[in-house]
Amino acid sequence: MNITLEQAEAVVDAAKQKAADIKTKMNICVVDSGSNLVAFIRNDGAWLGSVDIAIKKARTAVFFQMDTADLSPLVQPGKPLFNIEHSNGGLITFPGGVAIKDANGEVIGAIGVSGSSVEDDAEVAKAGAEAYR
Amino acid sequence: MNITLEQAEAVVDAAKQKAADIKTKMNICVVDSGSNLVAFIRNDGAWLGSVDIAIKKARTAVFFQMDTADLSPLVQPGKPLFNIEHSNGGLITFPGGVAIKDANGEVIGAIGVSGSSVEDDAEVAKAGAEAYR
Amino acid sequence: MNITLEQAEAVVDAAKQKAADIKTKMNICVVDSGSNLVAFIRNDGAWLGSVDIAIKKARTAVFFQMDTADLSPLVQPGKPLFNIEHSNGGLITFPGGVAIKDANGEVIGAIGVSGSSVEDDAEVAKAGAEAYR
Amino acid sequence: MNITLEQAEAVVDAAKQKAADIKTKMNICVVDSGSNLVAFIRNDGAWLGSVDIAIKKARTAVFFQMDTADLSPLVQPGKPLFNIEHSNGGLITFPGGVAIKDANGEVIGAIGVSGSSVEDDAEVAKAGAEAYR
Repeated sequence: MNITLEQAEAVVDAAKQKAADIKTKMNICVVDSGSNLVAFIRNDGAWLGSVDIAIKKARTAVFFQMDTADLSPLVQPGKPLFNIEHSNGGLITFPGGVAIKDANGEVIGAIGVSGSSVEDDAEVAKAGAEAYR
Repeated sequence: MNITLEQAEAVVDAAKQKAADIKTKMNICVVDSGSNLVAFIRNDGAWLGSVDIAIKKARTAVFFQMDTADLSPLVQPGKPLFNIEHSNGGLITFPGGVAIKDANGEVIGAIGVSGSSVEDDAEVAKAGAEAYR
Repeated sequence: MNITLEQAEAVVDAAKQKAADIKTKMNICVVDSGSNLVAFIRNDGAWLGSVDIAIKKARTAVFFQMDTADLSPLVQPGKPLFNIEHSNGGLITFPGGVAIKDANGEVIGAIGVSGSSVEDDAEVAKAGAEAYR
Repeated sequence: MNITLEQAEAVVDAAKQKAADIKTKMNICVVDSGSNLVAFIRNDGAWLGSVDIAIKKARTAVFFQMDTADLSPLVQPGKPLFNIEHSNGGLITFPGGVAIKDANGEVIGAIGVSGSSVEDDAEVAKAGAEAYR
């Protein structure tokens, strides 16, 4: 099972709306279950450095079938996965990447959001993920 | 001057419509005048290898302020730009990348399309670029 | 649909047998429909440079849903896809990568083989792919 | 001296059995004394992000002739090898990479395992390494 373009566009639209509601400028990305890009948009004036971060957040969520926020505590100095970010051509392990699952709990893709505080990024990503059905 | 997200979405939509009209599955990408991603979509079932090619076509068109089709003859063996593809982390110099210009002829972005024959790719990219105004 | 490990191992075993039959030393790789590694073996004494080539052949076959041998004529100087190899972190477009399809014709993975002449590579890859059912 | 394919397959098989015994889905990789891939398998449904991590764990163990678990304390902030992961195209320095030595104590290869907790990864890698003789 893989997220479709139509579903991905609904996810991006919901995230875009939330980004506007909280007055942020975001990079918003959806990847499929193989971590390949399906849809992407960047708000006018959003940070350029966040293009890659949004994509890496989404890919990281698919790679490990979990939200990037769940990885954050594990990658700190002294913790089990310290410096895991050096794999896979670069990971991003702070909040803003959310796995999207189907009714059976299978990961079918992920959304990655970057452009503001990680709290804002995570809120926008969550709003996007919830639009999937 | 830079293409806006709203304009980029209009470009993507027009390209997406043309891709459907000619019954192809495409990766469609718009970058801004700085070669940064603005919008991207992948049709369900489109070639995975064309994600990167669509992006590189759009970036190549912005990098040199010309359509990728205009570069093709120049990069052949014995020609002035032979193997220019080794620069910039990889270029794509065959048709399907089209520069988007404003009323003054300034490049404000580009569209890159990949997923079928280069003729189809170029036709879809052209349809997208013409939606800009 | 994705090739399973059990199916991939059968593909590798058949290719390995063919490599022995024709007295070659091969790198043999199977990737899934998302171009991710599933199984790999290298014969003792096989070319080290062929590790990466075998993997890239398999990935290329999945990326474009065709055998790498079918790409070879298209990527020559003056042809439509000249220098496409600069995309996707490097492609290999000569024979030895064979797409594996299910009963419906869907690509579920690919085998890539490298270590001898391209004719030998292609023969071994074909023997592997035919073991899939 | 270098690990042979036959030996590497025995190592992978033992690790695969252990992974099944403890009900985990793993990426399992064996490299030779030159850090080159010899054998690899990925369990169905194992994390995609762990393909690269398993390979990097095995390579890291060969690069420094020690288990990756022995590197973990040395790469922490303030410690002698802090951020060594930036070398060699990326290292992984947490548990799951185990050097394989011959009767004379010479490193002839390594196994790398990734797909679960680092404790599980290390247990599976150890089971694999012990199958070498």
